[in-house]
Amino acid sequence: MRASRLTLLLAVLVAHPVLAQRGPALRSPDVQPDRRVTFRLSAPNATDVRVTGDFLAAPQPLTRDERGVWSVTVGPIAPEIYGYQLSVNGVTTTRGSLVVPGATPMFYDQRPVPHGAVEQRWYDSKSLQLTRRAFIYTPPNYARSSERYPVLYLLHGAGGDESGWTENGRANVILDNLMADGKLKPLVVVMPYGNAYPNGSPQAEGADAMRRQREGFQRDLIEDLIPFVQANYRVQADREHRAIAGLSLGGAQALGTGLSHLDLFSRVAGLSPALGAVTSPQAGGLDFKALFTDSKKVNDRLKLLWVGCGTEDTLFNSVKEFDGLLTTSGITHVFRTTDGAHTWQVWRRYLNEMAPLLFK
Amino acid sequence: MRASRLTLLLAVLVAHPVLAQRGPALRSPDVQPDRRVTFRLSAPNATDVRVTGDFLAAPQPLTRDERGVWSVTVGPIAPEIYGYQLSVNGVTTTRGSLVVPGATPMFYDQRPVPHGAVEQRWYDSKSLQLTRRAFIYTPPNYARSSERYPVLYLLHGAGGDESGWTENGRANVILDNLMADGKLKPLVVVMPYGNAYPNGSPQAEGADAMRRQREGFQRDLIEDLIPFVQANYRVQADREHRAIAGLSLGGAQALGTGLSHLDLFSRVAGLSPALGAVTSPQAGGLDFKALFTDSKKVNDRLKLLWVGCGTEDTLFNSVKEFDGLLTTSGITHVFRTTDGAHTWQVWRRYLNEMAPLLFK
Repeated sequence: MRASRLTLLLAVLVAHPVLAQRGPALRSPDVQPDRRVTFRLSAPNATDVRVTGDFLAAPQPLTRDERGVWSVTVGPIAPEIYGYQLSVNGVTTTRGSLVVPGATPMFYDQRPVPHGAVEQRWYDSKSLQLTRRAFIYTPPNYARSSERYPVLYLLHGAGGDESGWTENGRANVILDNLMADGKLKPLVVVMPYGNAYPNGSPQAEGADAMRRQREGFQRDLIEDLIPFVQANYRVQADREHRAIAGLSLGGAQALGTGLSHLDLFSRVAGLSPALGAVTSPQAGGLDFKALFTDSKKVNDRLKLLWVGCGTEDTLFNSVKEFDGLLTTSGITHVFRTTDGAHTWQVWRRYLNEMAPLLFK
Repeated sequence: MRASRLTLLLAVLVAHPVLAQRGPALRSPDVQPDRRVTFRLSAPNATDVRVTGDFLAAPQPLTRDERGVWSVTVGPIAPEIYGYQLSVNGVTTTRGSLVVPGATPMFYDQRPVPHGAVEQRWYDSKSLQLTRRAFIYTPPNYARSSERYPVLYLLHGAGGDESGWTENGRANVILDNLMADGKLKPLVVVMPYGNAYPNGSPQAEGADAMRRQREGFQRDLIEDLIPFVQANYRVQADREHRAIAGLSLGGAQALGTGLSHLDLFSRVAGLSPALGAVTSPQAGGLDFKALFTDSKKVNDRLKLLWVGCGTEDTLFNSVKEFDGLLTTSGITHVFRTTDGAHTWQVWRRYLNEMAPLLFK
């Protein structure tokens, strides 16, 4: 009697909102086999719904049906991972990823190959008086080997954080695939948080904030994070086996810190670097030209200097100017220009292309 | 000349949207020292903006100022981590966390103590023919020791994923603090993905889906994940040092799998368990009562059976019924009832209370 009451009661729970899906879920974005994509949103009280994204030249309005479900179909769209937003009456309601699959796995798609691990580690930053988190990629079989590996410090952009290169950039998947294909020697990748002081903290505000951020980040990297990594991971601890790269803000940080510390780094890469983050007066005005006066010495120490930017990036002209400065200064480097704007599509491709050049 | 043009150009970049904050950022949620909280949203074209959250008895309307900024102040609110949503014309635009700090650190606040690591690992599930991800917490100093540790398999709820216990549950911080205070012996915690088949996949649909999910998850756990963990981590590989716990859907999975596999698990905990996920006919109808016929044998094997539920949880009566079944069946257990509903506030507290009881 008691057991059957219990069974009955528990059966009822299946209908409980904790378990049940909310009504017939709207499939959105809905990618069709012909790579056209339908966006849908239930918004009976809205009067204006739009989709924006890096696959659209301009925002597209959705149209409302009699039940209050808004929809629009766009495309076909080329295989890629895109960002999109839906907005209701001018306010963004959904930010998401749109994955349009290719006929065969893309370079950023997970394949049945050996996988590295991504570890979140917390370290005490004496220089910043903060506990900070870094994401650390170790290659397949790291835990079972006794080998020491070269290490790449890989920096995110403004608005991102230490999770960005794995969450949006799929760095671990790209590196797994490159290693499986014999294109990349195993390495450790350290992804720190790029702001010395988080937004909203007193140190992140005021006229001197950019300079404080830049100097604080660099000091934490050199005095706290690198020693932490070397004490806790089997990495090769000399400059020959230490690289620094980053995108946007992180690209400027990588070029700024890397090129001014060739005693620490032998490989430096800037992906769509927002150079103003280190060269502007507000940031303390790093003078790259002054670093390049003895070009022979720089070239002797630099095993790779890689700079890339998409031609549709609003930063393109400034990066091209930087390429010009490198050239007139006699600094050996790669300047890679591609299609694309200031997006993760570009940075995933750049990582895939640049990483194999770091440690050959 | 060239350098000064470059300097000028780069200085201009500081104003570039990549680097610049978007206008004067609206502070929201804005927690005042008296623990009142102001929510703000810029939505000039909206006609209805509301805030909902587990600190509010009912949705609160925001009011519009002449610039189109909507706001409302609520509270004071007790120190906690809450979830909140803002909605515009009936559609949710923002989901976020509201952290109301206490006068001293809460049990879930990061303190300057030794920190464990949280690793994302990918393993090949032969039983599901999928590559799956698990989050794995290792205690402070794990990497430098040669010790073997007991292990807890910790399961998330419906709608969550393997990141939930660290992202929302702050499990790593709670465990770090407990260890620092001498209340918890070091252990490894494995947080798997609780759905055998992700939403939208063919196996996740149809009349048999719940049963397929339950059986698939259990098989992956036992045949793939546990062997993977034991091959790749220094854990004690016997039942005496293996526990299983979970919340909501995961609570039902922990109780269902744990109590039907006492050859594998000696400690079992269900936090606000949604028991229907294993007992309902659609899920294959696990009959707990049948597992309890030889109560002496069950009690001999079970070193801890812990069940907790908040009295405001809509699942409370069903969990209380389950407690009744355990009692009438003569199964030794802890039934913990507390304030609270079906929320992370409750589950963080339960982890903090239950973890020290697992391996004494």
